[in-house]
Amino acid sequence: MKKLNVGMIGYGFMGRTHTNAHRQVNAFFDIPFQPILKAVAGRRQDAVREFAARWGYESWVTDWRALVERKDIDLVDICVPNNLHAEIAVAAAQAGKMILCEKPLALDVEQGRRMVAAVDKAGVPNLVSFNYRRVPAVTFAKMLIDEGKLGRIFHYRANFLQDWTISPDVPQGGTATWRLDVAAAGSGVTGDLLAHCIDTALWHNGPITRVNAMTETFVKERMHADTGKPQPVGIDDACTFFCRFANGSLGNFEATRYARGHKALYTFEINGEHASIRWDLHDLHRLEWFSHGDEGKLRGWRSIHVTDHGGEQPYMDHWWVPGLQIGYAESFVHQLADFLVAIAAGKPCAPTFRDALQTQKVCAAVLKSAAAGAWVDLPKE
Amino acid sequence: MKKLNVGMIGYGFMGRTHTNAHRQVNAFFDIPFQPILKAVAGRRQDAVREFAARWGYESWVTDWRALVERKDIDLVDICVPNNLHAEIAVAAAQAGKMILCEKPLALDVEQGRRMVAAVDKAGVPNLVSFNYRRVPAVTFAKMLIDEGKLGRIFHYRANFLQDWTISPDVPQGGTATWRLDVAAAGSGVTGDLLAHCIDTALWHNGPITRVNAMTETFVKERMHADTGKPQPVGIDDACTFFCRFANGSLGNFEATRYARGHKALYTFEINGEHASIRWDLHDLHRLEWFSHGDEGKLRGWRSIHVTDHGGEQPYMDHWWVPGLQIGYAESFVHQLADFLVAIAAGKPCAPTFRDALQTQKVCAAVLKSAAAGAWVDLPKE
Amino acid sequence: MKKLNVGMIGYGFMGRTHTNAHRQVNAFFDIPFQPILKAVAGRRQDAVREFAARWGYESWVTDWRALVERKDIDLVDICVPNNLHAEIAVAAAQAGKMILCEKPLALDVEQGRRMVAAVDKAGVPNLVSFNYRRVPAVTFAKMLIDEGKLGRIFHYRANFLQDWTISPDVPQGGTATWRLDVAAAGSGVTGDLLAHCIDTALWHNGPITRVNAMTETFVKERMHADTGKPQPVGIDDACTFFCRFANGSLGNFEATRYARGHKALYTFEINGEHASIRWDLHDLHRLEWFSHGDEGKLRGWRSIHVTDHGGEQPYMDHWWVPGLQIGYAESFVHQLADFLVAIAAGKPCAPTFRDALQTQKVCAAVLKSAAAGAWVDLPKE
Amino acid sequence: MKKLNVGMIGYGFMGRTHTNAHRQVNAFFDIPFQPILKAVAGRRQDAVREFAARWGYESWVTDWRALVERKDIDLVDICVPNNLHAEIAVAAAQAGKMILCEKPLALDVEQGRRMVAAVDKAGVPNLVSFNYRRVPAVTFAKMLIDEGKLGRIFHYRANFLQDWTISPDVPQGGTATWRLDVAAAGSGVTGDLLAHCIDTALWHNGPITRVNAMTETFVKERMHADTGKPQPVGIDDACTFFCRFANGSLGNFEATRYARGHKALYTFEINGEHASIRWDLHDLHRLEWFSHGDEGKLRGWRSIHVTDHGGEQPYMDHWWVPGLQIGYAESFVHQLADFLVAIAAGKPCAPTFRDALQTQKVCAAVLKSAAAGAWVDLPKE
Repeated sequence: MKKLNVGMIGYGFMGRTHTNAHRQVNAFFDIPFQPILKAVAGRRQDAVREFAARWGYESWVTDWRALVERKDIDLVDICVPNNLHAEIAVAAAQAGKMILCEKPLALDVEQGRRMVAAVDKAGVPNLVSFNYRRVPAVTFAKMLIDEGKLGRIFHYRANFLQDWTISPDVPQGGTATWRLDVAAAGSGVTGDLLAHCIDTALWHNGPITRVNAMTETFVKERMHADTGKPQPVGIDDACTFFCRFANGSLGNFEATRYARGHKALYTFEINGEHASIRWDLHDLHRLEWFSHGDEGKLRGWRSIHVTDHGGEQPYMDHWWVPGLQIGYAESFVHQLADFLVAIAAGKPCAPTFRDALQTQKVCAAVLKSAAAGAWVDLPKE
Repeated sequence: MKKLNVGMIGYGFMGRTHTNAHRQVNAFFDIPFQPILKAVAGRRQDAVREFAARWGYESWVTDWRALVERKDIDLVDICVPNNLHAEIAVAAAQAGKMILCEKPLALDVEQGRRMVAAVDKAGVPNLVSFNYRRVPAVTFAKMLIDEGKLGRIFHYRANFLQDWTISPDVPQGGTATWRLDVAAAGSGVTGDLLAHCIDTALWHNGPITRVNAMTETFVKERMHADTGKPQPVGIDDACTFFCRFANGSLGNFEATRYARGHKALYTFEINGEHASIRWDLHDLHRLEWFSHGDEGKLRGWRSIHVTDHGGEQPYMDHWWVPGLQIGYAESFVHQLADFLVAIAAGKPCAPTFRDALQTQKVCAAVLKSAAAGAWVDLPKE
Repeated sequence: MKKLNVGMIGYGFMGRTHTNAHRQVNAFFDIPFQPILKAVAGRRQDAVREFAARWGYESWVTDWRALVERKDIDLVDICVPNNLHAEIAVAAAQAGKMILCEKPLALDVEQGRRMVAAVDKAGVPNLVSFNYRRVPAVTFAKMLIDEGKLGRIFHYRANFLQDWTISPDVPQGGTATWRLDVAAAGSGVTGDLLAHCIDTALWHNGPITRVNAMTETFVKERMHADTGKPQPVGIDDACTFFCRFANGSLGNFEATRYARGHKALYTFEINGEHASIRWDLHDLHRLEWFSHGDEGKLRGWRSIHVTDHGGEQPYMDHWWVPGLQIGYAESFVHQLADFLVAIAAGKPCAPTFRDALQTQKVCAAVLKSAAAGAWVDLPKE
Repeated sequence: MKKLNVGMIGYGFMGRTHTNAHRQVNAFFDIPFQPILKAVAGRRQDAVREFAARWGYESWVTDWRALVERKDIDLVDICVPNNLHAEIAVAAAQAGKMILCEKPLALDVEQGRRMVAAVDKAGVPNLVSFNYRRVPAVTFAKMLIDEGKLGRIFHYRANFLQDWTISPDVPQGGTATWRLDVAAAGSGVTGDLLAHCIDTALWHNGPITRVNAMTETFVKERMHADTGKPQPVGIDDACTFFCRFANGSLGNFEATRYARGHKALYTFEINGEHASIRWDLHDLHRLEWFSHGDEGKLRGWRSIHVTDHGGEQPYMDHWWVPGLQIGYAESFVHQLADFLVAIAAGKPCAPTFRDALQTQKVCAAVLKSAAAGAWVDLPKE
């Protein structure tokens, strides 16, 4: 097993989930690489030092450039706010590093294009961390679609509902609330939440051709954590859009941070000619399934506990025993395992930067449509 | 369509559900009889008169004997407290009336035997109102068992949990709370709630051979509504028993009125070699189904909305359209329809008095076992 | 109690639900009128005769005009396809009859306006049968909103998903499938299903100011039941729209008959500042409730079994006992009881024809928006 | 942070869960010890070597005695079949090691007593791995009970239902199926599954005073994996018992491996005067809660997603963000964190060997009761 030196940039929520994956992957998956926690970069010295100690990084730096330039780093793992993705990723590509980048790809399509160009030119393996693809139930849905079990698709529906910004006292900017600051995040729920829904939808259901959207900012002004002063809110608090897919099906998407009672209600439902599928992140180990092919009087929605079935359910034979669930964090382990296997095989691992650029384009079209109050076509690829 | 004159005895909760069935049955079922609300009997003149007017009875009396003696009554419908069933039913049988009697059959096995002897001797049609058998999902369960879909049965489990007597301020006796008075009810949850569970279980799963039970009376003394004075409580507040069925399966039953949060949680679950079934009265239009015969990776519990499927689900093609549920009251309509069709065909309709006597025997064995702290065998039939 | 002579027009699915309500209302509700099933009108003599006999109508006619002209009819109950509502309702109003009309109000806004003008001019009581308002859980939701328990509303979401027209072999037109024939129905899911969602939404959440919609007709041609020949399909098979409410909240609505696995999945969810509400027609006796005011660590979605609570939950103290559910049909009984009480009090009963015209206008705006691919404003009232 | 050298004995399913905990605990919990994977013992050289390499153990041995004797081992972690617990634990205690032992404590009460005596004499920290106590929702239930939120307890109900041994082709003995071999396991579902239920119940609800049980062995003979020959089955395939708790409440417990459709349906329900609690291992991150103290009309069962709430829900502030669930494996991390904190503080950590002996006694009483067909009293402690 070959060692693979990891340089992590960032040590927040995503820095933790990615690091955990690097530490766990070899115990559960037989893969040709062993990630070594070589270095972590972060701006605040005391915080990055504490993080390095807790998680077992061999070293730390306060300037990400120093990390990218190190010869002994094989893979750069980017876990910083969206506005820093492009610069770091381009530098890492130029330095010949493999790159694992948090989602969304970038602040905007233009940045995304530059990132794709950079990895293409450098020929380095690259992956964007749309981790929900690799929740076993979600991967299982893709498997069922690919087996043709759903037939023609009529509807694709997805929501991502949260409630954490209802209070106007939540600030914008800073470390914990940069997602509310348009300068750091690029957009609100569209880039943060809908990007997940769109990534999964494009994977499950193919290209989106047109979108029509509505956005709203319920709280118009919030204190900025950096300045301590009220500042206009530039992000979308809520976004709804419907769309058409190239396969003829209709899409309906919604995300908000003002849905009281929901913390992370990412749900999707796919209605096909022969069968339908539903999933909900709150109970991520279950897939709901309805098959018209069942004996008529016995038809009903099944709640499938996706925890193994003899190895036929994705990833689960690597964990415990049937009936015992895994959690959120394991999706990052699966993502890393797949990435490392693909690297060893010299193959791309989806969603690549190029794949994620498509999601970025849909997000951009959604925001444009909402601003214009009109349908926006996606460019043909 | 022949008219069938109904004489109702009692006008409480059950008097209402039975009367409603008599009024509705012909609109929804094609049956050879038309029930006519001829007379109702009740002890309190003002109450019985008001009831007769509201529900459209042609006449009323305050003495049930007067009703039973009337020549123009074809069917006597007994909806009074348990301690009156035997006397009325025997008189009605002797008068040659058809009899529909509320459950449980009687106060005790001895009374039950006399009732069976009376209807046998008179040769009159008779039915005990274990109405839950005829909730469509429960009947559907029986159909699936009879089709052999479950294979060998390993376990039968049933609960009936309520919470309405937790407060010691609830009185015993009187009109509304006679179920807490052992003189009127014969027993507590065993006769009131477990009798339902046992009736369904005997129907679904065959004879019970042995029982082992535990009972408890949590509130030892309650004011009696008739005397206004505290009096020892003679009923069982809670009862748990396990048992063996003749088919080799194990049973586990429990009822209580001290399960905070449950109003009418009658549930059963049957585990067979090939499939399992679950049901819950709180959502009575659904049946949960698990089939080992499903494709392995897609196995899961199905929630079947039992609301038609092309007429294959019991009773439901008589009501509305698929997806639209019926309620509790319709089970009495089904019961009446089946009874009237059987009468016209000259066939018995289960559960007859004789069938219900078996349930009475199991209840008696349960109470005996709890008192003795030992297994009690059911007599071979 | 005063007798109120009912003349029913139509004897299909809705003719049955309305007639059932006329027969049941006095047994369960103390109201100042007793509906008398005086006459029913239907085009096919054998069918209307059989219906009259089954349900106890005193007489029948094959021409609705004959019924409307009868002096002894007090209330005309319109249960025919949408394209006949206007002509019948206007004639009934001119004849001075009280009118109960099935939903949607009319084929289009113009017809609706004429109907409103006719009942206004005649001064007759009028009600449109958006029965789902009077499912207890739905009425309960309105009560909670009116108590201010939700605070500022951010989101209103409603779906009505079915799957019965996926097969291209389902015909259009005729008795059973007139809802697929644009000439009889006026529109597809918009008038049939979304009209219900919109009626409830306007009641719960106030006026809609703008809509933006997408529709699709998946099966372009179906055999017409009258001609036996293939004919283009003129209805919308699916419709999605988002909108803005006057209170600042965002709406998201969808209906389809191509959602495999759903028979009647009418759901709504309301997200307020302090609390959220969800409901699903498939389990109509439950309301889901989330309150931010609950003790923090114990917050969660509650599943409230709306079956009484001491008379505080709407309508349920008229039926059975807590824990025992009612079904779909009872919503029509509630509707009738409310209508008759309002008539006696000389007050309007919502949704009146005028109220229903607003729903008609929203439906029209939705269809217009979908055709134009653009936002459509609702006129200020 | 002090290093704590771990010697693991066994490398099966439990060896994996415990090792994972040793590797993860410091990243998520601030505790005074850092577990070092010093050595692992296992009988099959190739297997133990592979396990050591995969999980990062510094060394391996094939004789557990060699491991126990090593001076550089601080904590012995026993993850072997039940029949080996006593011998290893006694030796480890005599060698002065801290001990973490898989459940159940021992094969029988006599072995258990010796183990307790050994750790008492040696004065070494000891813990039995009843890991389900430390699923956050289960710990949360204990917290709510201790806060007095339930009031007087009336009922405690627990099930543990599986379906993996229905086929008579499943062998007994060997590595994968030693749980079916009475020589290795001591008992069947009683020691394997009910032991978990009993441990939780004693913790939640206090001592059990009397039990009355029924057991069954559905498949009487199975091939033995060691001999390849059919051999009588000595374990209980299913066990049901009811009991009385010292606090006056009634218990009802059941476990089986013949409940088609259930993989790991460990559920419990507690009914108190003021509130009730339900939990299900299949969705382990949720707790169901019903409070009579809620506003009457809004009472209902709440589904609490136990994933943080501001740090008030046990353990969850150490993981991700609200709404994102953890899985089965994390319960072992919590257990280890609590154990290490207690060791540092010089305090016992429940369930100690002595605590687990109580569970062993209840299991023994259950088996004795089933054999005798009679109530069995638990000795007063």
